[in-house]
Amino acid sequence: MALVGASGDESKNTARPQRYLQKHGYAGKIIPVNAARQEVLGLPAFRNIPEPVDHAFIMVDDVESAIEDCGRAGVPVASVFTDGFADVGSQGMERQQKLTARAKALGVRLLGPNSMGMINLPGRCALTVNAVLEMDAPPAGTTSIVSQSGTMLGTVLSRGAARGLGFAKMVSVGNESDLGVGEIVELLASDPETKTILLFLETVRDAERLARGARAAHAAGKPVVAYKLGRSSLGERLAPAHTGALAGEDAALDAYFRDCGIARVDLLETLIEIGPMLAGRKPPPAGRSPRVSVVTTTGGGAASVVDRLGLAGIETVAPGSDAPIVDLTMGRKSAGYGAVVQELLDFPGNDAVLAVVGSSAQFHPQLAVEPILKSRRGAKPLAVFMTPHAEKSLALLAQAGIAAFRTPEACADAFRAYFGWRAPRLAPGGEALPFVLKTREPTEADALALFASMGVPVVESAVVRAPDFAHGLPYPVALKILDAEVAHKSDVGGVALGIRSREELLDRAKFLSEKSESLIVQRMETGLGEAIVGYREDPVAGPLVLVGAGGILAELYNDVVLRLAPVSEAEALEMIAAVKGFAVLRGYRGRPRGDLKALAQAVAAMSRLCLLKGRPVREAEANPVIVKAQGCVAVDGLAVLKEA
Amino acid sequence: MALVGASGDESKNTARPQRYLQKHGYAGKIIPVNAARQEVLGLPAFRNIPEPVDHAFIMVDDVESAIEDCGRAGVPVASVFTDGFADVGSQGMERQQKLTARAKALGVRLLGPNSMGMINLPGRCALTVNAVLEMDAPPAGTTSIVSQSGTMLGTVLSRGAARGLGFAKMVSVGNESDLGVGEIVELLASDPETKTILLFLETVRDAERLARGARAAHAAGKPVVAYKLGRSSLGERLAPAHTGALAGEDAALDAYFRDCGIARVDLLETLIEIGPMLAGRKPPPAGRSPRVSVVTTTGGGAASVVDRLGLAGIETVAPGSDAPIVDLTMGRKSAGYGAVVQELLDFPGNDAVLAVVGSSAQFHPQLAVEPILKSRRGAKPLAVFMTPHAEKSLALLAQAGIAAFRTPEACADAFRAYFGWRAPRLAPGGEALPFVLKTREPTEADALALFASMGVPVVESAVVRAPDFAHGLPYPVALKILDAEVAHKSDVGGVALGIRSREELLDRAKFLSEKSESLIVQRMETGLGEAIVGYREDPVAGPLVLVGAGGILAELYNDVVLRLAPVSEAEALEMIAAVKGFAVLRGYRGRPRGDLKALAQAVAAMSRLCLLKGRPVREAEANPVIVKAQGCVAVDGLAVLKEA
Repeated sequence: MALVGASGDESKNTARPQRYLQKHGYAGKIIPVNAARQEVLGLPAFRNIPEPVDHAFIMVDDVESAIEDCGRAGVPVASVFTDGFADVGSQGMERQQKLTARAKALGVRLLGPNSMGMINLPGRCALTVNAVLEMDAPPAGTTSIVSQSGTMLGTVLSRGAARGLGFAKMVSVGNESDLGVGEIVELLASDPETKTILLFLETVRDAERLARGARAAHAAGKPVVAYKLGRSSLGERLAPAHTGALAGEDAALDAYFRDCGIARVDLLETLIEIGPMLAGRKPPPAGRSPRVSVVTTTGGGAASVVDRLGLAGIETVAPGSDAPIVDLTMGRKSAGYGAVVQELLDFPGNDAVLAVVGSSAQFHPQLAVEPILKSRRGAKPLAVFMTPHAEKSLALLAQAGIAAFRTPEACADAFRAYFGWRAPRLAPGGEALPFVLKTREPTEADALALFASMGVPVVESAVVRAPDFAHGLPYPVALKILDAEVAHKSDVGGVALGIRSREELLDRAKFLSEKSESLIVQRMETGLGEAIVGYREDPVAGPLVLVGAGGILAELYNDVVLRLAPVSEAEALEMIAAVKGFAVLRGYRGRPRGDLKALAQAVAAMSRLCLLKGRPVREAEANPVIVKAQGCVAVDGLAVLKEA
Repeated sequence: MALVGASGDESKNTARPQRYLQKHGYAGKIIPVNAARQEVLGLPAFRNIPEPVDHAFIMVDDVESAIEDCGRAGVPVASVFTDGFADVGSQGMERQQKLTARAKALGVRLLGPNSMGMINLPGRCALTVNAVLEMDAPPAGTTSIVSQSGTMLGTVLSRGAARGLGFAKMVSVGNESDLGVGEIVELLASDPETKTILLFLETVRDAERLARGARAAHAAGKPVVAYKLGRSSLGERLAPAHTGALAGEDAALDAYFRDCGIARVDLLETLIEIGPMLAGRKPPPAGRSPRVSVVTTTGGGAASVVDRLGLAGIETVAPGSDAPIVDLTMGRKSAGYGAVVQELLDFPGNDAVLAVVGSSAQFHPQLAVEPILKSRRGAKPLAVFMTPHAEKSLALLAQAGIAAFRTPEACADAFRAYFGWRAPRLAPGGEALPFVLKTREPTEADALALFASMGVPVVESAVVRAPDFAHGLPYPVALKILDAEVAHKSDVGGVALGIRSREELLDRAKFLSEKSESLIVQRMETGLGEAIVGYREDPVAGPLVLVGAGGILAELYNDVVLRLAPVSEAEALEMIAAVKGFAVLRGYRGRPRGDLKALAQAVAAMSRLCLLKGRPVREAEANPVIVKAQGCVAVDGLAVLKEA
């Protein structure tokens, strides 16, 4: 290891990597590079990297010269702690691009810039400035983490260590100018020391690469779990500011993680604690309502978890009883804790087991914690929540590879994440489709023609002109202005519905002609309900398809479901099933049922916009799509193309 | 203290109170009562309570005899650990009622049954079986807690102690047969050792008493904070099962807490950690959007809190900048942490300050934690979130009375709870109103007449009879069946709308007469939107008024707002402002505005059903209420009375 800019002043950040490598017993050679000194903290110092090392850690301002030096010395990888690159805006971004290009030319892979380095705990290699390494003997484990925040490595390591949870590899990727989250996940997929992979993300910079890494991890039987910031718009504002990346829409990334086979946790501590719950497991079978059995020595403690399981739609079941939990302070006082845990683990009626332990966890582990340790565990996840401050019991469980949670909320979040976890999806491919549109600024008529060419049923319509506005459609009809710029025509009075005669048409056409020269006449369609079917490219997650309740419901209640495009008809049906407002089309209170299969076909058709040659469509929306007892039809369309 | 049933076997639960009183230095006299022994753990034992003690702790099965003994000895308060009362169902409830009546006759106040006892930390009086007292030297503080779960006293005490947070009085109320949460809150309101009162609740057994206690605490300048289980229906199922109480609807209790001036936290650890943030403070001024300023040494760490502040609708502001936070690793590297904290505390543009500390909190508290300790703090809440495991820093902050949070989620939850906290509301009273209804099973016509008598505008209508169905209303009209049992008439085809002539009426009337003999004709009303206005008595929280988006939106999206009844017109307007679906009546996308003031008057009028003499109405609903540009009108009504 070469430490470029290693300080001889122990109190400085730049002295840390050398101190930490030595403190934690790194067995390899450490080479401080510091032109101003002969010696750094007891080791001979060099003006330049004197020999081909495995890894250089760069802490000097003049990163560019240091990279040249790496190139000269044949260093394969350099981690750059120095900041002032993409993290400080466009000028820094330019500097970063130059640096990356030069490193590539020199054959040096880069981690960072703005990386806190990496920690290999089984290898005793603490190549980092993170002050968490001041701790003595951080425990090694089989969970690795890749983080876009350097500080978070310390958070995870110190909090894990306090409860006996160890880690394998910990990597701070900084600005990801070269080595990114995706490639490191791919490396960890084939790392024999790693069983589970955690991600702390502010955004996703290379969605395809991460998807590939996640699939490799899945194939290797290694669960990948993500905690991602930016769920609120305030959070979104922060995340990119910090690392110079684009922010993707959170809902889009949610769909993305799901498709990649990445489990997503909501709470920070769940990320730290969930490892043992997923290690060695495959995603649970989809399509059934998850059931958890619960044993407890404290009613209130169990309720604090179960209450949140209920909010996540997870049921609880007890063998041979319709009580929601097995409360050993109530009905089954004489049963031993261990016997009940084993009974629940063996019970075929559940999908996972939760063991809650009260005060005894702190001072009397023999009562409930030890019986848990002794249980015969199989394929079923087991999680333990202990109500008191009980670090020794947490460590005992960690040692045995049993997931234990400090808070009821993280425990419930872990169950939610586990049951929502899916195998990576193989997106239905398809040949590239020809793009029919001739214009760069599609009108509604163009958009509807495009949708029709994809297979979406669209309303019969005719573009009409003064003075006769001839159309050839049967009455009643609708008349609309046809400006590409006006997205919400009805908001500006640009729509006349239910026109019943030619006289009425001429009258309304005269009025609307004042707003726009182009008008379109459409057959009036009626049905049982309305939907919105949309498509757009997220800057991070890529092409997405959306279906939601029609009218203003999608917007007011955010009642929409997103998936990565393209989707199959079966997947579109799953999406439709998750839209609340479609209750009215599912026979709610005796209402007639709408043709949701036809709607699913339209959603799948719309999603294939991503297969168009050159992927020219940036955004498209059929709103509303009228859903009928038989079939559905898009009566309004909007398409926005990418800049030429 | 008399310990009735004190065991001489140290390993038994029933030996704990004596062991704990002795271990923690109780200075008063301890009297074991155990007929089978001369001596218990070094103290002389008695067959009966030999003298008038302050408090008896009863652990024997024969609670009834023990209470007689208390009566004989003149014991003013007895805590009953023994269970098998209301906690085991109706037979136990009967036993409990007898016990309570007898204790009252004897002049003995009861805590429990099924109580784990109480702990007075400043008084070194650990009168409890909770194993948490095995710990050495639990710290004393100024926060007290009342809990419906005995185990949770241990949870709070042990977790608090681990981070240096001490407590004053801790009370396990058990089944609340006599002394309940409300009365104990009232006692704590005048307890000089208590500054903040925490509640761990599974339900609320005596809403009026707790409201009184909370008002007394508010008057004494003591914040009351509640964590309550039963947010999901699964949780609701658990809570009452555990303690033999009725479960109230969670949303109703939310309205109740707000009206009582009780701040409600969502996460268990927030309850433990929020004390110092609220101690000595009044609820924040209502009616403005809350703003927090944030300083951090870690971008990712700050984002993990700020992201959730955003989800709670809390803005962040920085002095002299439009950046959302002050990140000392970014723009203002040279600024000292302490100087920035002080600048934010002094900045008039915010309502609270959040200080986030990264890795340094664990090993270098001098860098950021100590400057926080030295800051000059005023009326503004300051909260600290530290990303690493940093128990020493947590303890330093606790000692200084500064709120510090272990998880970003609890930290954000505390801000949310603080900003949502209101002073107790004085419900607008009013004279008892006469009840006009003569029937016990009101039809729709009766319900509308009742609403009209309260001041709710209702549709003109006439009950009609075969053969001529005469009504005297102008066409168009609606025709409906008038059965008290049929709540959703349109679901069973019992409604005909838009009838334009007498012929059409006779035709439809003939058809509907087959379903019911009673029919009602109503004037057809149209407007800009629909609302639901409801009233009901929650078994726990009491009378409630509800307003929500009309049609099926209220149900599908749960888009309703609840408040304790009665409400003023101004309060009803606040409720209406919180209903999302009313966007369409607030001028959404250029739509015409509806008369929401008229709707507010109708809500206030409906809420006054609680003022009717004898409070005869159990449930009432005007659905829909048609909201017009001018005025509003209820076109369908339902009222259910209490059993005679």
